[in-house]
Amino acid sequence: MHTPLVLSPLEGIPLIQAGDDLVGFILQASEQQSILLQNNDIFVITQKIISKAEGRIVDLKTVEPSAYALDLAGETHKDPRLVELILRESNAVIRVGHDVIVVEHKLGFVCANAGVDQSNIEPPERALLLPEDPDESARRIRQQLEVETGMHLGVLIIDSHGRSWRVGVIGVSVGLSGMPGVVDLRGKSDLFDRTLRITVVAAADELAAAASLVMGEANEGTPVVHVRGFPYPLEDGNMSQLLRSRETDLFR
Amino acid sequence: MHTPLVLSPLEGIPLIQAGDDLVGFILQASEQQSILLQNNDIFVITQKIISKAEGRIVDLKTVEPSAYALDLAGETHKDPRLVELILRESNAVIRVGHDVIVVEHKLGFVCANAGVDQSNIEPPERALLLPEDPDESARRIRQQLEVETGMHLGVLIIDSHGRSWRVGVIGVSVGLSGMPGVVDLRGKSDLFDRTLRITVVAAADELAAAASLVMGEANEGTPVVHVRGFPYPLEDGNMSQLLRSRETDLFR
Repeated sequence: MHTPLVLSPLEGIPLIQAGDDLVGFILQASEQQSILLQNNDIFVITQKIISKAEGRIVDLKTVEPSAYALDLAGETHKDPRLVELILRESNAVIRVGHDVIVVEHKLGFVCANAGVDQSNIEPPERALLLPEDPDESARRIRQQLEVETGMHLGVLIIDSHGRSWRVGVIGVSVGLSGMPGVVDLRGKSDLFDRTLRITVVAAADELAAAASLVMGEANEGTPVVHVRGFPYPLEDGNMSQLLRSRETDLFR
Repeated sequence: MHTPLVLSPLEGIPLIQAGDDLVGFILQASEQQSILLQNNDIFVITQKIISKAEGRIVDLKTVEPSAYALDLAGETHKDPRLVELILRESNAVIRVGHDVIVVEHKLGFVCANAGVDQSNIEPPERALLLPEDPDESARRIRQQLEVETGMHLGVLIIDSHGRSWRVGVIGVSVGLSGMPGVVDLRGKSDLFDRTLRITVVAAADELAAAASLVMGEANEGTPVVHVRGFPYPLEDGNMSQLLRSRETDLFR
């Protein structure tokens, strides 16, 4: 009998400020929803509240756009200071569209506008960057959760990304600890004893999409989702498992 | 109080043959797991068993490769007859890699090898094509489910796709009925009354990824997942909602 996968949004997490104790809020909210943590449970957390807790907010008035940022801002109808931040957060610009700059982020993944965000931040003249090292943020949060609960847990930090070829955003992993990024099924055989065509499953990204569906995008009322029933062993992984090298990428 | 999203793999669905009554198997398996269907429940079904039930199996011995197929087969180390099938299923070849042909499928989406599959099919000299019209397959299955249960249900047909930029496959939608492909949040405002940066959520693809995680990739033991708690109204959608037009696509 397979167990179901159950994703429960946590209620009552307050608006996060720099320096807040996320783990305290997460454990308090879990307790108020009568979620008794078990080994192999996972918490999925939106990057926004991690970035806020880590103080990754930039006042746009302090940002001086370069000539290149001014050019790109004209092309994309964006605030030149925002474009400057996007460039500073990136290794390379991959594509420029009417209203989007697709980059390879310094963290290694390809995404729109380097994950720099102006929604749900007050006042509007500020922007929120991704956490500086999301794997390390996940590791720190997991360690604190495990110390306080005595359970073996996973932590997954997610963002919403647009895709090539398809409309709409989906949740994707940006940092993780205590769970695998990918699950390698090479060597497993199919029902008729042939080797599987599909060999590597992006299990963390599948969970990221699932949790994002539960969080919704409209607000930060539910920035954390509790997960029970993840179907693979919680082997410790990291983001680099999920990043395709430039050499094997047909679309970079 | 938000409700949890619960994904339950259905046990005991037998190996599917052409002409099999999928709906009968699904309802029987649900009953055996004591799942009492409710309005707004969704069944997520892997395309493989739909294709098999619809008889979309091709004997490779009947396939005559074109000169172009022979060329591409050499480049990608694939069976030329398989490449010929891939080309017949496609509108255009987008990229060719060492072991993959990325195409725009006749159904409109971009994917590897046109979704033509050789795993879990006996004997090995055969290949399985995607359903001819997966939205219509989903509609037909949903209609039959609704007639037999009296409930308003959604049906989502999924496959596993590789991605640009990232390692590993994730579940994605290939056909749907009775549920939205995307959810448009334009006009909704964020916590501080600004218009949302993220406007369109690919809700069906997020659910596809979630269900795929539950199914696993190693076998067809769990080709159907029952879903309760999808957080958006079950407005009738279709695949075209999820397909980016060539004109707005920066990666085609």
